[in-house]
Parts: sequence; C-alpha cells; structure tokens
Amino acid sequence: MQETQPYVLALAQLSASNDLQANLEKTLGWIERAAREDASVVCLQELFNMPYPCQAEEHKYFDWAEPIPGPSTEAVARVAKEHRLTVIVPLFEKRAPGLYHNSIAVIGPQGDLLGVYRKMHIPDDPGFYEKYYFAPGDLGFKVFHSGPASVGTLICWDQWYPEAARLTAMQGANLLVYPTAIGWHPQEKESEGAKQRDAWRTIQRGHAVANGVFVAAANRVGHEKPNDDAAGVMFWGSSFICGPFGEILAEGSEDREELILAEIDPAKIETVRRNWPFLRDRRIDAYSPIDRRFLT
Amino acid sequence: MQETQPYVLALAQLSASNDLQANLEKTLGWIERAAREDASVVCLQELFNMPYPCQAEEHKYFDWAEPIPGPSTEAVARVAKEHRLTVIVPLFEKRAPGLYHNSIAVIGPQGDLLGVYRKMHIPDDPGFYEKYYFAPGDLGFKVFHSGPASVGTLICWDQWYPEAARLTAMQGANLLVYPTAIGWHPQEKESEGAKQRDAWRTIQRGHAVANGVFVAAANRVGHEKPNDDAAGVMFWGSSFICGPFGEILAEGSEDREELILAEIDPAKIETVRRNWPFLRDRRIDAYSPIDRRFLT
Repeated sequence: MQETQPYVLALAQLSASNDLQANLEKTLGWIERAAREDASVVCLQELFNMPYPCQAEEHKYFDWAEPIPGPSTEAVARVAKEHRLTVIVPLFEKRAPGLYHNSIAVIGPQGDLLGVYRKMHIPDDPGFYEKYYFAPGDLGFKVFHSGPASVGTLICWDQWYPEAARLTAMQGANLLVYPTAIGWHPQEKESEGAKQRDAWRTIQRGHAVANGVFVAAANRVGHEKPNDDAAGVMFWGSSFICGPFGEILAEGSEDREELILAEIDPAKIETVRRNWPFLRDRRIDAYSPIDRRFLT
Repeated sequence: MQETQPYVLALAQLSASNDLQANLEKTLGWIERAAREDASVVCLQELFNMPYPCQAEEHKYFDWAEPIPGPSTEAVARVAKEHRLTVIVPLFEKRAPGLYHNSIAVIGPQGDLLGVYRKMHIPDDPGFYEKYYFAPGDLGFKVFHSGPASVGTLICWDQWYPEAARLTAMQGANLLVYPTAIGWHPQEKESEGAKQRDAWRTIQRGHAVANGVFVAAANRVGHEKPNDDAAGVMFWGSSFICGPFGEILAEGSEDREELILAEIDPAKIETVRRNWPFLRDRRIDAYSPIDRRFLT
C-alpha cells in the first residue's frame, strides 16, 4: 500500500543575503545535502531566495519576483530530478505586471512542476507589510501527491488559522508544511520572545492533533535589516517537524543554518486517528456560520 | 467599560463517589470556598455530581439523570445567589423519557438559570461509551453573558474541534470553558500518558491562540472503576486556565481535589488581538467546504 510507505522529510533552515543568485546556489547545495541524508521531500523556507522584503514598502523589491515556472523553479527542478526529490519551493511570484503573490511551487521527482499554492492569509503588521506586496491567494487550499507524500502546502500566516489546516487535511494530506518567515522585533525579544515562539509552536502542534497529520514549519534564521538604522527582525529558526498527535520529532536551533530531518510514516496516521477518532464526530450540520466574519 | 472589568475564575477539580447526594454537598462546599477566594465565576467538572457513567453501557445509570432546572441546579442556585456567583453546572440532563444529554446549566448571580448548552460532539471509545447515553446537542454553540464574564460553554470531546472553539469565540466570548472527564487507561499510562495529556493541553491552548480568548478546562480526579474487576479510568486532573495567547495562568495537580484560580482580564484580549490580528484576515470566502465530512 502506497500510503503506508515511510519517507524522509528535510526542512532547510537558512539565512539569506541581498545576493539572490548566491542564495539560490547555496540552497541548491543544501537540497543536495538533504538527498545525501536520504530525504525524498525537501521543504524550503518562505520566499527562500531573498531577504524577507516586507519590512518596508518599497517598489524596488518587486524586482525580486519571478514567474512560475521561472529561473528558480528551473534550477531547483534540475536538482530535484537528479536526486528524485519532491521540493517545496516558496517564491515571490510575479503573475502579471503589477500582480504578485507569496506562493509555493511544488517540484516533483521528475523535475516537473506539480502545481502552485498561493498564500491565502496575508498579514500586515509593523515590519511585516505583506498586504502591500501580495494579492491574497485565489487557488484555495491544496494538497500535492508525490509518491508516498501527500503534502498540504500552507505558508506562514496561514499557520494561525485552524480552518486552513482543516480544509487542507480534509483533502487527504499526510503532511502539512508551513514555510515561514517569523522572528522577533529585537525590542520585544526579552519580554515576549519565549511566549511568542511557544504560541507559534503550540498552534501548529494543535493542527497536527486536530487533524491527525504530520506538521512541519520551515523558518529562516538571521537578523535582517531593511537599512542600517532599522532594528530589523531576528528570524527565530526553530523549524520543527511533529507527528500526528503533536509530538515533536525534530527541531532546529534559533540561529544556525541546518537541515531538520524526520521520517514521516503515513501508517501512524491510521493508528492515531483510530485511537482518537475526531474526524468521525465532526458536527458538519453546525459549522456553516464559520464563513461569517464574526457573530455579533 | 464592562468588558474591561477583570474577574476571578475558579475551577473545581474533584473526585466523585457513588453517593450522588454526597457529591453534590461536597461540591457546594467547594463553591463556597471559591467565593471566599473572590471568585465570581465557578466552573464544575463534566457530569459533576456522579462517577463518570460511560465506562459501561447500563440502563441503571439513566437513573442518575435529572431535568434542568432540577434538584442539582436548584441547590447550586441557592449558593450562587447567596455569594453572587456565576456557576457552570455540567449535568446528565433528562430532557424527556428516553432522551438524555450531556449538558451544562449556567446559573447566574441572582440564582437564575441563564441557559443551557448541550454537548455537541459525542465520543464513543472503549471506556467512554457516550453515544449510548447522550443524544448530540441540538442548541448549537453558546455564549452566556454575566457581568464582565462572557462564557462560551463547551464540554470535553468538544475540545478537540477547532470549529467549536471558533464558532463559540465568534459570539463574543472572553472565556471558553471545557468541563471534562478525561483520564488514562491504566495499561497505557506509562507508555502514552504524558503524550496524551500534552496533546490535550496543546490543542486547547491552540484554541486560545487562534481566537485570542481565555480558555479553561476543569477535569475530575480519581481512579474510577465500573466494577471491581475493571481496570477503570484514572482521571488525570491537570485542570488549567490559560490566557489569550495560550500562556498557562494556573494549573492543577494530577490527583488532588482542589480549586484552580486565575484572574480573567478581558482587556488583555484587546491587547493580544491588536498585536496578533488573526480575526481580521480570515478568508471567509474560502471556508465553506468545512461543512463537508471530508474532501476526498
């Protein structure tokens, strides 16, 4: 049975410089390293080949966007095909002049483009001005099947929405991946940092529990500043992979470039869901007001 | 502003014997003790005045059910009125001959019945045969306003469903309460116990984060057996109250009868939601398939 075949997932937790070509080449090296570690699925971080552009609202950063397929997906596809890998490639997508998305291209082990997911939930907060750059996704929630992996693709801010995890898991995902760019405002790190990271981990582990699926978050590292005078954002790494009952299987450091690896065994999903049959008892007759903004 | 008034919540974490009258009287004593500790809202555990009846399917346990209002709500109402308390009273509700629910009666500080919630998600697993006893709730998700408290009432198995937390929070709750009867099968405790309790805590803390509300779970303690030969269930206590970013404010032991107390400050909800404006960005245009059983 294909669904009971285990596979190894690798998350590439990296930093990024202003040299996009160098970021791409470095990342290709980490993908090859993941292949040597027996990974068959590799997940890169959000907007993997660039510094996080949304700390400021500036026209020039739109120059960093590219189409899908485009130069980055083609470069990754060559490595994916050589090593028979499925690669989750988060990109600043240029869809049309003046129309951009925060997207994922999924590359299959023959180097083919399996499809695209466009970030559905777009944040906008001081230092994270994403509504300026990215149109909200219009493709809905998505799962990509590639060998034993059925990967639900979500991006960063999506991770705070149980609806997104649910609607993705309901399409038969065995793994939800969240490429991410989250970090501390330096002035808040000491007082709020531990609490913020714990909430971030907790809600994603909760999605694993609620849906009985593996969940992985691939975050970047490094202190990025839009200019020398800015406090910037200290990206907190801490990429992790958890099992279908929310148990942590592997976890990265706060500040080092590294691969986070774990075996994803889809057979565990059947075991966990048989013991905790939440999907059986959903009150689907009572959920429809969830498509309202609020109920007061 | 009423919404910015802090109030003290007490959870009564108790054991139960086969003497229902004694359980009731003991509980009234703990409610009075909560009043002396300045609580204005008290939450009792699921089916508060009885051993958990669902370890076996037996006709005789239906004798333990009672109407709402009925003797137990009237006894609690007297204490509630005397001490000006809001009390969350989880009961085995007899609605009509042969029709029973796992319910909550909410008693207000004038001793009045503010309303009823009937458990929406009904489990059925070895030792937890609830589908035999309880018809699924038909009142939907509910919030009760009583002074500064806006309490969303949910019960045990509901706690595994993000939809339930969301639809309750969307009615303006500042606090979700989960009266609970959850414990370990003795033969699983050593290998699975820590993981099970951690998943239980994690998903509820996740509801706090997703919705920016306070969340509290009131669980029972004690090793209950339906008969001398049964392994029974070791109810794990560990009742807790967490804040609107999932942070634990107070937590009980595994095995002792006690009150768990914390201040609920609704003003914190505004602060947390302003920093983490998840409600702003929900993709309500894309959530409607959530009322389907599954999408494959």
